[in-house]
Amino acid sequence: MVVVSFPEQVREVLDSAGTHLCVGLDPDPSRLPSSRSGADPPEVMEEFLRGIVTATAPYCAAFKFQFAGFLALGPRGGALMAHLRREIPSRHLTILDLKVGDVPHTMRLYGKGIFGEYGFDAVTANPYLGWEALEALAQDSKGGILVLLHTSNVGSADVQNIPTGVGGSVWKVLLEGLRQRAREGRYGAVVGATFPEPLAEARRTLGPEVPILVPGVGVQGADPHETLALAPGNTLVNSSRSILYASSGDDWQEAAAQEARKLSEALATRP
Amino acid sequence: MVVVSFPEQVREVLDSAGTHLCVGLDPDPSRLPSSRSGADPPEVMEEFLRGIVTATAPYCAAFKFQFAGFLALGPRGGALMAHLRREIPSRHLTILDLKVGDVPHTMRLYGKGIFGEYGFDAVTANPYLGWEALEALAQDSKGGILVLLHTSNVGSADVQNIPTGVGGSVWKVLLEGLRQRAREGRYGAVVGATFPEPLAEARRTLGPEVPILVPGVGVQGADPHETLALAPGNTLVNSSRSILYASSGDDWQEAAAQEARKLSEALATRP
Repeated sequence: MVVVSFPEQVREVLDSAGTHLCVGLDPDPSRLPSSRSGADPPEVMEEFLRGIVTATAPYCAAFKFQFAGFLALGPRGGALMAHLRREIPSRHLTILDLKVGDVPHTMRLYGKGIFGEYGFDAVTANPYLGWEALEALAQDSKGGILVLLHTSNVGSADVQNIPTGVGGSVWKVLLEGLRQRAREGRYGAVVGATFPEPLAEARRTLGPEVPILVPGVGVQGADPHETLALAPGNTLVNSSRSILYASSGDDWQEAAAQEARKLSEALATRP
Repeated sequence: MVVVSFPEQVREVLDSAGTHLCVGLDPDPSRLPSSRSGADPPEVMEEFLRGIVTATAPYCAAFKFQFAGFLALGPRGGALMAHLRREIPSRHLTILDLKVGDVPHTMRLYGKGIFGEYGFDAVTANPYLGWEALEALAQDSKGGILVLLHTSNVGSADVQNIPTGVGGSVWKVLLEGLRQRAREGRYGAVVGATFPEPLAEARRTLGPEVPILVPGVGVQGADPHETLALAPGNTLVNSSRSILYASSGDDWQEAAAQEARKLSEALATRP
Protein backbone atom coordinates (compact mmCIF):
# COMPACT_ATOMS: atom_id res chain seq x y z
CA MET A 1 0.00 0.00 0.00
CA VAL A 2 1.37 3.39 -0.97
CA VAL A 3 0.70 5.97 1.72
CA VAL A 4 -0.20 9.23 0.05
CA SER A 5 0.04 12.48 2.03
CA PHE A 6 -2.95 14.81 2.19
CA PRO A 7 -1.32 17.37 -0.19
CA GLU A 8 -0.56 14.57 -2.67
CA GLN A 9 -4.13 13.34 -2.44
CA VAL A 10 -5.45 16.84 -3.18
CA ARG A 11 -2.99 17.23 -6.07
CA GLU A 12 -4.25 13.95 -7.58
CA VAL A 13 -7.94 14.86 -7.42
CA LEU A 14 -7.23 18.29 -8.91
CA ASP A 15 -5.25 16.75 -11.79
CA SER A 16 -7.89 14.12 -12.39
CA ALA A 17 -10.81 16.57 -12.32
CA GLY A 18 -9.01 19.36 -14.18
CA THR A 19 -10.64 21.93 -11.92
CA HIS A 20 -10.33 23.41 -8.44
CA LEU A 21 -14.09 23.39 -7.90
CA CYS A 22 -15.47 21.92 -4.68
CA VAL A 23 -19.25 21.60 -4.55
CA GLY A 24 -20.71 22.33 -1.14
CA LEU A 25 -23.64 20.17 -0.08
CA ASP A 26 -25.52 22.49 2.28
CA PRO A 27 -28.95 21.03 2.91
CA ASP A 28 -31.38 23.80 3.76
CA PRO A 29 -34.94 22.53 4.19
CA SER A 30 -36.31 26.01 3.53
CA ARG A 31 -34.76 26.12 0.05
CA LEU A 32 -35.89 22.90 -1.59
CA PRO A 33 -37.31 23.10 -5.12
CA SER A 34 -40.79 24.54 -4.83
CA SER A 35 -42.47 21.48 -6.39
CA ARG A 36 -41.06 19.40 -3.49
CA SER A 37 -42.19 21.62 -0.60
CA GLY A 38 -44.56 20.00 1.85
CA ALA A 39 -43.22 16.48 1.45
CA ASP A 40 -41.20 14.66 4.14
CA PRO A 41 -38.04 16.81 4.46
CA PRO A 42 -35.32 14.16 4.96
CA GLU A 43 -36.70 12.05 2.12
CA VAL A 44 -37.01 14.97 -0.30
CA MET A 45 -33.60 16.22 0.78
CA GLU A 46 -32.01 12.86 -0.02
CA GLU A 47 -33.53 12.83 -3.49
CA PHE A 48 -32.49 16.44 -4.03
CA LEU A 49 -28.89 15.98 -2.87
CA ARG A 50 -28.43 12.76 -4.86
CA GLY A 51 -29.60 14.70 -7.88
CA ILE A 52 -27.10 17.45 -7.17
CA VAL A 53 -24.23 14.96 -6.82
CA THR A 54 -25.13 13.26 -10.11
CA ALA A 55 -25.46 16.59 -11.89
CA THR A 56 -22.25 18.17 -10.57
CA ALA A 57 -19.79 15.27 -10.12
CA PRO A 58 -18.44 15.60 -13.69
CA TYR A 59 -17.51 19.23 -13.00
CA CYS A 60 -15.82 19.17 -9.61
CA ALA A 61 -12.82 17.79 -7.72
CA ALA A 62 -14.40 17.55 -4.29
CA PHE A 63 -17.62 17.62 -2.30
CA LYS A 64 -17.92 19.43 1.01
CA PHE A 65 -20.72 18.32 3.33
CA GLN A 66 -22.01 21.11 5.57
CA PHE A 67 -22.75 19.29 8.81
CA ALA A 68 -25.22 21.85 10.18
CA GLY A 69 -27.67 21.12 7.38
CA PHE A 70 -27.68 17.41 8.16
CA LEU A 71 -28.08 18.03 11.90
CA ALA A 72 -31.02 20.31 11.12
CA LEU A 73 -32.84 17.31 9.63
CA GLY A 74 -32.84 15.57 13.01
CA PRO A 75 -31.77 11.96 13.65
CA ARG A 76 -32.39 10.95 10.03
CA GLY A 77 -29.81 13.49 8.91
CA GLY A 78 -26.99 11.17 9.98
CA ALA A 79 -28.25 8.33 7.81
CA LEU A 80 -28.72 10.73 4.89
CA MET A 81 -25.13 11.94 5.32
CA ALA A 82 -23.84 8.35 5.32
CA HIS A 83 -25.89 7.39 2.23
CA LEU A 84 -24.80 10.46 0.36
CA ARG A 85 -21.13 9.97 1.31
CA ARG A 86 -21.29 6.53 -0.31
CA GLU A 87 -22.77 8.07 -3.47
CA ILE A 88 -19.69 10.20 -4.07
CA PRO A 89 -17.47 8.70 -6.80
CA SER A 90 -14.11 7.58 -5.38
CA ARG A 91 -12.13 9.95 -7.61
CA HIS A 92 -13.53 12.90 -5.62
CA LEU A 93 -12.24 14.19 -2.32
CA THR A 94 -14.87 14.31 0.44
CA ILE A 95 -14.73 16.93 3.19
CA LEU A 96 -16.91 17.15 6.27
CA ASP A 97 -17.38 20.78 7.25
CA LEU A 98 -17.89 20.41 10.99
CA LYS A 99 -15.21 22.84 12.24
CA VAL A 100 -14.29 20.43 15.03
CA GLY A 101 -12.33 21.66 18.02
CA ASP A 102 -12.29 19.90 21.37
CA VAL A 103 -9.95 18.47 24.01
CA PRO A 104 -7.57 15.71 22.80
CA HIS A 105 -9.57 12.80 24.24
CA THR A 106 -12.67 14.03 22.43
CA MET A 107 -10.86 14.80 19.18
CA ARG A 108 -9.98 11.10 18.93
CA LEU A 109 -13.69 10.24 19.04
CA TYR A 110 -14.34 12.81 16.32
CA GLY A 111 -11.65 11.16 14.19
CA LYS A 112 -13.27 7.77 14.71
CA GLY A 113 -16.64 9.10 13.61
CA ILE A 114 -15.61 11.33 10.72
CA PHE A 115 -12.85 9.28 9.09
CA GLY A 116 -13.85 5.84 10.37
CA GLU A 117 -17.63 5.51 10.54
CA TYR A 118 -18.50 8.03 7.83
CA GLY A 119 -15.36 7.63 5.69
CA PHE A 120 -14.61 11.26 4.89
CA ASP A 121 -11.19 12.13 3.46
CA ALA A 122 -10.85 15.41 5.34
CA VAL A 123 -12.50 17.58 7.98
CA THR A 124 -12.48 21.29 8.79
CA ALA A 125 -11.12 22.09 12.25
CA ASN A 126 -11.26 25.08 14.60
CA PRO A 127 -7.91 25.94 16.22
CA TYR A 128 -9.23 27.69 19.35
CA LEU A 129 -8.30 24.73 21.59
CA GLY A 130 -4.70 24.74 20.37
CA TRP A 131 -2.37 22.53 18.37
CA GLU A 132 -2.52 19.83 21.01
CA ALA A 133 -6.15 19.20 20.06
CA LEU A 134 -5.44 19.13 16.31
CA GLU A 135 -2.47 16.84 16.81
CA ALA A 136 -4.61 14.38 18.78
CA LEU A 137 -6.93 14.20 15.78
CA ALA A 138 -3.98 13.75 13.40
CA GLN A 139 -2.30 11.05 15.47
CA ASP A 140 -5.31 8.87 15.83
CA SER A 141 -6.63 8.93 12.27
CA LYS A 142 -5.61 9.20 8.64
CA GLY A 143 -7.69 12.04 7.19
CA GLY A 144 -6.74 15.56 6.16
CA ILE A 145 -7.27 18.37 8.66
CA LEU A 146 -8.23 21.77 7.25
CA VAL A 147 -7.54 24.37 9.93
CA LEU A 148 -9.64 27.57 10.01
CA LEU A 149 -7.36 30.57 9.68
CA HIS A 150 -9.35 33.47 8.25
CA THR A 151 -13.04 32.84 7.62
CA SER A 152 -15.30 34.38 4.99
CA ASN A 153 -17.85 36.09 7.27
CA VAL A 154 -17.87 39.83 7.87
CA GLY A 155 -17.45 39.39 11.63
CA SER A 156 -14.36 37.17 11.33
CA ALA A 157 -12.22 40.14 12.40
CA ASP A 158 -13.59 40.04 16.00
CA VAL A 159 -11.12 37.33 17.01
CA GLN A 160 -9.03 36.48 13.95
CA ASN A 161 -7.74 40.02 13.45
CA ILE A 162 -6.96 40.87 17.07
CA PRO A 163 -3.42 42.31 17.06
CA THR A 164 -1.00 40.26 19.14
CA GLY A 165 2.43 40.85 20.55
CA VAL A 166 3.89 37.71 18.97
CA GLY A 167 3.70 38.01 15.18
CA GLY A 168 0.77 39.92 13.73
CA SER A 169 -2.90 39.25 14.29
CA VAL A 170 -4.29 36.04 15.77
CA TRP A 171 -4.86 34.36 12.42
CA LYS A 172 -1.28 35.10 11.34
CA VAL A 173 0.09 33.47 14.48
CA LEU A 174 -1.92 30.40 13.51
CA LEU A 175 -0.73 30.63 9.91
CA GLU A 176 2.86 30.44 11.16
CA GLY A 177 1.98 27.48 13.42
CA LEU A 178 0.43 25.72 10.45
CA ARG A 179 3.45 26.44 8.26
CA GLN A 180 5.69 24.77 10.82
CA ARG A 181 3.52 21.67 10.90
CA ALA A 182 2.79 21.45 7.17
CA ARG A 183 5.65 19.06 6.44
CA GLU A 184 3.78 16.39 8.42
CA GLY A 185 1.55 16.08 5.38
CA ARG A 186 -1.69 16.09 7.36
CA TYR A 187 -2.80 19.71 7.44
CA GLY A 188 -4.35 22.26 5.16
CA ALA A 189 -6.02 25.62 5.76
CA VAL A 190 -9.43 27.25 5.37
CA VAL A 191 -9.21 30.84 4.17
CA GLY A 192 -12.27 32.68 2.87
CA ALA A 193 -12.26 34.22 -0.60
CA THR A 194 -13.98 37.37 0.63
CA PHE A 195 -10.76 38.85 2.07
CA PRO A 196 -8.17 38.83 -0.76
CA GLU A 197 -5.12 39.86 1.25
CA PRO A 198 -5.26 37.11 3.87
CA LEU A 199 -5.87 34.57 1.11
CA ALA A 200 -2.81 35.68 -0.89
CA GLU A 201 -0.70 35.82 2.26
CA ALA A 202 -1.73 32.33 3.35
CA ARG A 203 -0.74 30.84 -0.02
CA ARG A 204 2.53 32.78 -0.08
CA THR A 205 3.43 31.58 3.42
CA LEU A 206 2.38 27.96 3.03
CA GLY A 207 3.81 27.41 -0.47
CA PRO A 208 1.90 25.79 -3.34
CA GLU A 209 1.51 22.26 -1.93
CA VAL A 210 -0.39 22.77 1.34
CA PRO A 211 -4.10 22.39 0.57
CA ILE A 212 -6.26 25.47 1.06
CA LEU A 213 -10.03 25.25 1.07
CA VAL A 214 -11.53 28.55 -0.02
CA PRO A 215 -15.22 29.22 0.68
CA GLY A 216 -16.91 32.45 -0.31
CA VAL A 217 -17.24 32.21 -4.09
CA GLY A 218 -20.79 32.53 -5.41
CA VAL A 219 -23.51 33.79 -3.07
CA GLN A 220 -20.89 35.24 -0.69
CA GLY A 221 -19.59 37.35 -3.57
CA ALA A 222 -15.98 36.51 -4.51
CA ASP A 223 -14.92 36.02 -8.15
CA PRO A 224 -13.52 32.58 -9.10
CA HIS A 225 -10.76 33.85 -11.43
CA GLU A 226 -9.47 36.36 -8.93
CA THR A 227 -9.61 33.82 -6.12
CA LEU A 228 -7.45 31.38 -8.01
CA ALA A 229 -5.03 34.08 -9.07
CA LEU A 230 -4.56 35.00 -5.40
CA ALA A 231 -4.11 31.42 -4.28
CA PRO A 232 -2.86 29.06 -6.99
CA GLY A 233 -1.60 25.56 -6.14
CA ASN A 234 -3.43 22.84 -4.21
CA THR A 235 -6.50 24.99 -3.73
CA LEU A 236 -10.11 23.85 -3.52
CA VAL A 237 -12.58 26.63 -4.22
CA ASN A 238 -15.96 25.90 -2.70
CA SER A 239 -19.33 27.02 -3.91
CA SER A 240 -22.52 25.78 -2.31
CA ARG A 241 -25.69 27.80 -2.56
CA SER A 242 -25.07 29.29 -6.02
CA ILE A 243 -25.02 25.71 -7.39
CA LEU A 244 -27.57 23.96 -5.17
CA TYR A 245 -30.19 26.65 -5.41
CA ALA A 246 -29.45 27.84 -8.96
CA SER A 247 -33.14 27.28 -9.72
CA SER A 248 -36.11 26.65 -7.47
CA GLY A 249 -38.12 25.33 -10.42
CA ASP A 250 -38.33 21.86 -11.92
CA ASP A 251 -35.09 22.51 -13.81
CA TRP A 252 -33.06 22.58 -10.55
CA GLN A 253 -30.84 19.68 -11.64
CA GLU A 254 -29.98 21.14 -15.06
CA ALA A 255 -29.48 24.56 -13.50
CA ALA A 256 -27.08 23.11 -10.91
CA ALA A 257 -25.12 21.27 -13.60
CA GLN A 258 -24.90 24.41 -15.69
CA GLU A 259 -23.71 26.55 -12.79
CA ALA A 260 -21.16 23.88 -11.76
CA ARG A 261 -19.86 23.66 -15.33
CA LYS A 262 -19.47 27.41 -15.53
CA LEU A 263 -17.57 27.55 -12.24
CA SER A 264 -15.55 24.47 -13.16
CA GLU A 265 -14.26 26.17 -16.30
CA ALA A 266 -13.52 29.39 -14.45
CA LEU A 267 -11.53 27.30 -11.98
CA ALA A 268 -9.76 25.03 -14.48
CA THR A 269 -6.35 23.69 -13.43
CA ARG A 270 -4.95 24.47 -16.92
CA PRO A 271 -6.48 27.72 -18.18
CA MET B 1 -46.11 32.27 28.68
CA VAL B 2 -43.37 33.59 30.93
CA VAL B 3 -40.11 33.97 29.05
CA VAL B 4 -37.28 32.95 31.32
CA SER B 5 -33.75 34.09 30.51
CA PHE B 6 -30.95 31.53 30.30
CA PRO B 7 -29.41 32.65 33.63
CA GLU B 8 -32.83 32.36 35.31
CA GLN B 9 -33.29 28.91 33.83
CA VAL B 10 -29.92 27.79 35.21
CA ARG B 11 -30.70 29.33 38.61
CA GLU B 12 -33.98 27.37 38.73
CA VAL B 13 -32.41 23.99 37.93
CA LEU B 14 -29.65 24.60 40.49
CA ASP B 15 -32.19 25.48 43.18
CA SER B 16 -34.37 22.52 42.31
CA ALA B 17 -31.48 20.03 42.24
CA GLY B 18 -29.62 21.49 45.22
CA THR B 19 -26.31 20.87 43.46
CA HIS B 20 -24.09 22.32 40.76
CA LEU B 21 -23.31 18.90 39.30
CA CYS B 22 -23.66 18.38 35.56
CA VAL B 23 -23.24 14.78 34.40
CA GLY B 24 -21.42 14.47 31.09
CA LEU B 25 -22.69 11.76 28.77
CA ASP B 26 -19.55 10.90 26.80
CA PRO B 27 -20.17 7.66 24.92
CA ASP B 28 -16.86 5.88 24.35
CA PRO B 29 -17.33 2.49 22.70
CA SER B 30 -13.92 1.37 23.96
CA ARG B 31 -14.97 1.83 27.59
CA LEU B 32 -18.24 -0.04 27.88
CA PRO B 33 -18.67 -2.40 30.86
CA SER B 34 -16.59 -5.48 30.11
CA SER B 35 -19.57 -7.86 30.25
CA ARG B 36 -21.08 -5.89 27.32
CA SER B 37 -18.06 -5.90 25.01
CA GLY B 38 -18.55 -7.62 21.68
CA ALA B 39 -22.25 -6.81 21.39
CA ASP B 40 -23.69 -4.30 18.88
CA PRO B 41 -22.13 -0.97 20.01
CA PRO B 42 -25.03 1.47 19.45
CA GLU B 43 -27.49 -0.88 21.11
CA VAL B 44 -25.27 -1.57 24.11
CA MET B 45 -24.43 2.11 24.33
CA GLU B 46 -28.10 3.05 24.50
CA GLU B 47 -28.73 0.59 27.31
CA PHE B 48 -25.62 1.80 29.12
CA LEU B 49 -26.43 5.52 28.82
CA ARG B 50 -30.07 5.03 29.83
CA GLY B 51 -28.76 3.22 32.89
CA ILE B 52 -26.40 6.11 33.65
CA VAL B 53 -29.22 8.69 33.33
CA THR B 54 -31.48 6.69 35.64
CA ALA B 55 -28.70 6.22 38.18
CA THR B 56 -27.46 9.82 38.23
CA ALA B 57 -30.55 11.98 37.57
CA PRO B 58 -31.37 12.26 41.30
CA TYR B 59 -27.91 13.73 41.94
CA CYS B 60 -27.43 16.33 39.22
CA ALA B 61 -28.82 19.57 37.85
CA ALA B 62 -27.90 19.04 34.20
CA PHE B 63 -26.76 16.57 31.58
CA LYS B 64 -24.15 17.45 28.98
CA PHE B 65 -24.13 15.34 25.81
CA GLN B 66 -20.68 15.05 24.23
CA PHE B 67 -21.46 15.10 20.53
CA ALA B 68 -18.23 13.41 19.39
CA GLY B 69 -19.17 10.19 21.14
CA PHE B 70 -22.52 10.03 19.35
CA LEU B 71 -20.92 10.80 15.98
CA ALA B 72 -18.41 8.01 16.61
CA LEU B 73 -21.31 5.54 16.67
CA GLY B 74 -22.13 6.32 13.04
CA PRO B 75 -25.59 7.15 11.68
CA ARG B 76 -27.34 5.40 14.56
CA GLY B 77 -25.67 7.80 16.99
CA GLY B 78 -28.13 10.54 16.03
CA ALA B 79 -31.14 8.42 16.89
CA LEU B 80 -29.50 7.37 20.16
CA MET B 81 -28.90 11.04 21.02
CA ALA B 82 -32.54 11.89 20.30
CA HIS B 83 -33.86 8.96 22.35
CA LEU B 84 -31.60 9.78 25.24
CA ARG B 85 -32.49 13.46 25.14
CA ARG B 86 -36.15 12.49 25.60
CA GLU B 87 -35.22 10.34 28.60
CA ILE B 88 -33.88 13.30 30.54
CA PRO B 89 -36.39 14.46 33.17
CA SER B 90 -37.71 17.96 32.38
CA ARG B 91 -36.38 19.44 35.63
CA HIS B 92 -32.82 18.99 34.30
CA LEU B 93 -31.00 21.32 31.95
CA THR B 94 -29.72 19.63 28.77
CA ILE B 95 -26.56 20.84 27.03
CA LEU B 96 -25.19 19.69 23.71
CA ASP B 97 -21.40 19.90 23.76
CA LEU B 98 -20.72 20.46 20.06
CA LYS B 99 -18.59 23.62 20.28
CA VAL B 100 -20.34 25.07 17.24
CA GLY B 101 -18.78 27.92 15.32
CA ASP B 102 -19.63 28.76 11.73
CA VAL B 103 -20.74 31.59 9.47
CA PRO B 104 -24.10 33.23 10.38
CA HIS B 105 -26.14 31.45 7.69
CA THR B 106 -24.87 28.08 8.95
CA MET B 107 -25.29 28.94 12.63
CA ARG B 108 -29.02 29.32 11.99
CA LEU B 109 -29.14 25.74 10.72
CA TYR B 110 -27.26 24.59 13.82
CA GLY B 111 -29.85 26.36 15.97
CA LYS B 112 -32.66 24.62 14.11
CA GLY B 113 -31.04 21.22 14.67
CA ILE B 114 -29.84 21.61 18.24
CA PHE B 115 -32.71 23.54 19.84
CA GLY B 116 -35.46 22.59 17.41
CA GLU B 117 -35.06 19.02 16.21
CA TYR B 118 -33.19 17.66 19.24
CA GLY B 119 -34.68 19.98 21.87
CA PHE B 120 -31.55 20.85 23.85
CA ASP B 121 -31.70 23.78 26.28
CA ALA B 122 -28.17 25.00 25.57
CA VAL B 123 -25.14 24.42 23.37
CA THR B 124 -21.42 25.05 23.70
CA ALA B 125 -20.03 27.42 21.08
CA ASN B 126 -16.58 28.30 19.75
CA PRO B 127 -15.96 32.05 19.35
CA TYR B 128 -13.27 31.88 16.62
CA LEU B 129 -15.70 33.13 13.93
CA GLY B 130 -16.63 36.18 15.95
CA TRP B 131 -19.65 37.58 17.76
CA GLU B 132 -21.56 37.94 14.48
CA ALA B 133 -21.73 34.14 14.28
CA LEU B 134 -22.86 33.71 17.89
CA GLU B 135 -25.44 36.45 17.52
CA ALA B 136 -26.91 34.73 14.45
CA LEU B 137 -27.41 31.63 16.59
CA ALA B 138 -28.95 33.70 19.38
CA GLN B 139 -31.32 35.62 17.11
CA ASP B 140 -32.76 32.64 15.38
CA SER B 141 -33.35 30.35 18.34
CA LYS B 142 -34.20 30.26 22.04
CA GLY B 143 -31.48 28.17 23.70
CA GLY B 144 -28.56 29.17 25.89
CA ILE B 145 -25.17 29.68 24.28
CA LEU B 146 -22.12 28.72 26.32
CA VAL B 147 -19.10 30.40 24.78
CA LEU B 148 -15.66 28.77 25.11
CA LEU B 149 -13.30 31.16 26.87
CA HIS B 150 -10.54 29.14 28.54
CA THR B 151 -10.63 25.38 27.99
CA SER B 152 -9.40 22.63 30.31
CA ASN B 153 -6.75 21.06 28.06
CA VAL B 154 -3.02 21.60 28.60
CA GLY B 155 -2.59 23.05 25.10
CA SER B 156 -5.34 25.64 25.50
CA ALA B 157 -2.64 28.32 25.91
CA ASP B 158 -1.58 28.06 22.21
CA VAL B 159 -4.34 30.41 21.11
CA GLN B 160 -6.31 31.43 24.21
CA ASN B 161 -3.27 32.87 26.04
CA ILE B 162 -1.71 34.74 23.12
CA PRO B 163 -0.98 38.25 24.45
CA THR B 164 -2.83 40.96 22.53
CA GLY B 165 -2.54 44.70 22.27
CA VAL B 166 -6.18 45.30 23.16
CA GLY B 167 -6.82 44.04 26.72
CA GLY B 168 -4.84 41.03 27.86
CA SER B 169 -4.67 37.62 26.24
CA VAL B 170 -7.12 36.41 23.59
CA TRP B 171 -9.45 34.72 26.06
CA LYS B 172 -9.64 37.88 28.16
CA VAL B 173 -10.67 39.92 25.12
CA LEU B 174 -13.47 37.40 24.63
CA LEU B 175 -14.36 37.53 28.32
CA GLU B 176 -14.87 41.28 28.01
CA GLY B 177 -16.96 40.78 24.84
CA LEU B 178 -19.11 38.28 26.69
CA ARG B 179 -19.53 40.58 29.68
CA GLN B 180 -20.87 43.29 27.38
CA ARG B 181 -23.41 40.92 25.88
CA ALA B 182 -24.41 39.13 29.06
CA ARG B 183 -27.39 41.38 29.75
CA GLU B 184 -29.11 39.92 26.69
CA GLY B 185 -29.75 36.85 28.85
CA ARG B 186 -28.67 34.36 26.20
CA TYR B 187 -25.01 33.70 26.91
CA GLY B 188 -22.88 31.83 29.35
CA ALA B 189 -19.22 30.76 29.36
CA VAL B 190 -17.16 27.59 29.35
CA VAL B 191 -14.08 27.82 31.57
CA GLY B 192 -12.10 24.72 32.52
CA ALA B 193 -11.50 23.88 36.18
CA THR B 194 -7.89 22.93 35.52
CA PHE B 195 -6.71 26.57 35.42
CA PRO B 196 -7.91 28.20 38.69
CA GLU B 197 -6.97 31.79 37.89
CA PRO B 198 -8.91 32.14 34.63
CA LEU B 199 -11.91 30.50 36.30
CA ALA B 200 -11.90 32.92 39.22
CA GLU B 201 -11.36 35.87 36.90
CA ALA B 202 -14.23 34.84 34.62
CA ARG B 203 -16.66 34.66 37.55
CA ARG B 204 -15.42 37.94 38.98
CA THR B 205 -15.84 39.70 35.63
CA LEU B 206 -19.21 38.20 34.67
CA GLY B 207 -20.84 38.49 38.10
CA PRO B 208 -22.76 35.67 39.80
CA GLU B 209 -25.70 35.36 37.38
CA VAL B 210 -24.05 34.55 34.04
CA PRO B 211 -23.95 30.75 33.70
CA ILE B 212 -20.49 29.16 33.60
CA LEU B 213 -20.03 25.55 32.59
CA VAL B 214 -16.88 24.17 34.17
CA PRO B 215 -15.41 20.93 32.81
CA GLY B 216 -12.28 19.37 34.22
CA VAL B 217 -13.39 17.93 37.56
CA GLY B 218 -12.76 14.21 37.99
CA VAL B 219 -10.50 12.43 35.50
CA GLN B 220 -8.99 15.75 34.40
CA GLY B 221 -7.94 16.38 37.99
CA ALA B 222 -9.64 19.45 39.50
CA ASP B 223 -11.19 19.36 42.98
CA PRO B 224 -14.96 20.05 43.20
CA HIS B 225 -14.83 22.11 46.43
CA GLU B 226 -12.05 24.33 45.17
CA THR B 227 -13.74 24.76 41.81
CA LEU B 228 -16.94 26.00 43.40
CA ALA B 229 -15.05 28.28 45.77
CA LEU B 230 -13.35 29.90 42.76
CA ALA B 231 -16.57 30.27 40.79
CA PRO B 232 -19.72 30.43 42.93
CA GLY B 233 -23.06 31.52 41.44
CA ASN B 234 -24.84 30.06 38.42
CA THR B 235 -22.11 27.49 37.83
CA LEU B 236 -22.50 24.00 36.40
CA VAL B 237 -19.57 21.73 37.22
CA ASN B 238 -19.28 18.89 34.77
CA SER B 239 -17.90 15.45 35.37
CA SER B 240 -18.10 12.76 32.73
CA ARG B 241 -15.68 9.88 32.76
CA SER B 242 -15.23 9.63 36.54
CA ILE B 243 -18.97 8.91 36.78
CA LEU B 244 -19.63 6.93 33.58
CA TYR B 245 -16.66 4.66 33.93
CA ALA B 246 -16.55 4.45 37.74
CA SER B 247 -16.59 0.67 37.35
CA SER B 248 -16.09 -1.57 34.33
CA GLY B 249 -17.71 -4.48 36.17
CA ASP B 250 -21.35 -5.48 36.49
CA ASP B 251 -21.79 -2.89 39.25
CA TRP B 252 -21.30 0.01 36.77
CA GLN B 253 -24.72 1.49 37.49
CA GLU B 254 -24.35 1.48 41.28
CA ALA B 255 -20.79 2.76 40.97
CA ALA B 256 -21.95 5.65 38.74
CA ALA B 257 -24.74 6.53 41.19
CA GLN B 258 -22.32 6.47 44.09
CA GLU B 259 -19.77 8.67 42.34
CA ALA B 260 -22.51 11.11 41.24
CA ARG B 261 -23.86 11.30 44.80
CA LYS B 262 -20.41 11.99 46.18
CA LEU B 263 -19.79 14.77 43.65
CA SER B 264 -23.33 16.09 44.10
CA GLU B 265 -22.71 16.58 47.82
CA ALA B 266 -19.31 18.16 47.23
CA LEU B 267 -21.07 20.57 44.84
CA ALA B 268 -24.16 21.28 46.97
CA THR B 269 -25.81 24.69 46.46
CA ARG B 270 -26.17 25.10 50.24
CA PRO B 271 -23.09 23.65 51.94
